[in-house]
Amino acid sequence: MYQYAESLTRLIEQFACLPGIGPKTAQRLSFYVLNNMSEQQVKVFAQALLAVKKNITTCPVCCNLTDVTPCRICQDEQRNHTQICVVEEAQDVIAIEKTREYKGLYHVLQGRISPMEGKGPEDLKIKELLARLGDARVKEVVLATNPDVEGETTALYLAKLIKPLEVKLTRIAHGVPVGGDLEYADIATLTRALSGRREV
Amino acid sequence: MYQYAESLTRLIEQFACLPGIGPKTAQRLSFYVLNNMSEQQVKVFAQALLAVKKNITTCPVCCNLTDVTPCRICQDEQRNHTQICVVEEAQDVIAIEKTREYKGLYHVLQGRISPMEGKGPEDLKIKELLARLGDARVKEVVLATNPDVEGETTALYLAKLIKPLEVKLTRIAHGVPVGGDLEYADIATLTRALSGRREV
Repeated sequence: MYQYAESLTRLIEQFACLPGIGPKTAQRLSFYVLNNMSEQQVKVFAQALLAVKKNITTCPVCCNLTDVTPCRICQDEQRNHTQICVVEEAQDVIAIEKTREYKGLYHVLQGRISPMEGKGPEDLKIKELLARLGDARVKEVVLATNPDVEGETTALYLAKLIKPLEVKLTRIAHGVPVGGDLEYADIATLTRALSGRREV
Repeated sequence: MYQYAESLTRLIEQFACLPGIGPKTAQRLSFYVLNNMSEQQVKVFAQALLAVKKNITTCPVCCNLTDVTPCRICQDEQRNHTQICVVEEAQDVIAIEKTREYKGLYHVLQGRISPMEGKGPEDLKIKELLARLGDARVKEVVLATNPDVEGETTALYLAKLIKPLEVKLTRIAHGVPVGGDLEYADIATLTRALSGRREV
């Protein structure tokens, strides 16, 4: 049986290796590259792929992804160096940055405590976080791990370690999401929203 | 506002240029490349992208995509050189090959007559098809354009051109799809199925 020319088959295979991309999508993307992209555009794409592996490293201070050492946030003297916001992944930094509310530093744990995934505290960048707390400038640690079981476990674990040190320790608020509907809020969220109520 | 490191942002942008890939998927794919692929795997991917643009050309005989000249099908003397199956796209060749029913040659029009998309007969590889019909070996042309309005128009147009020549001209059968349900077949399909009925 005849199949696509070898180079085309190989590109389809490569696309199909990516998560969430099945054989049909891989074929569609490959044909798009072949028919709709200029040689120059494909070159730029290929270089972007190689560059990401070559240039991106982990910031030795906050363990975020970076292409400079230390990363742009850790370098930035405009930011509030008295606060450290602890998150699970690099993606969470972007999510918090989008609020434009937080001006402090970050610490990326690169995961969370999850026995299911075989991840314990020793797999996270906790040692690096504790080392940073030695800096007299740091006054507050904000725990911003995800509000799920693993995230809570991780926050609890960190709280135990950090409590004895002389820094303020906070956790992001849990409650009903803005724009949500009380009727459809789950019990756990509503319970947290009630217990965390504030005077107006 | 802080954004991802430059190399990462650029790769996300590149993925987001592909059809059907939104910003969230582009981010997910970029993180997959960064975290789950080895440098070697990324190199292979980048090379596959470049190779497809460099190696894939159009077969001068059948206008199919190929990395050898003429393409593997046109070269193959095992195949039946008396039949030419006319299809719209290279993908259609693969679809027909999967049936393992057809052993002849192909001709890829690289499109179809579609005034809506601004495509006329002069944009298709019709001249190349007619040139092939000069070969005395060719006995039959099978029109296998898509069974939609544009495909039918294209088939009709080709039929007018080829009819005067001394070759058998056929069109793939239209009817109810195998495994389908008569109750849900559309009127046009059912009409074609009835008019195309065969003695058993």
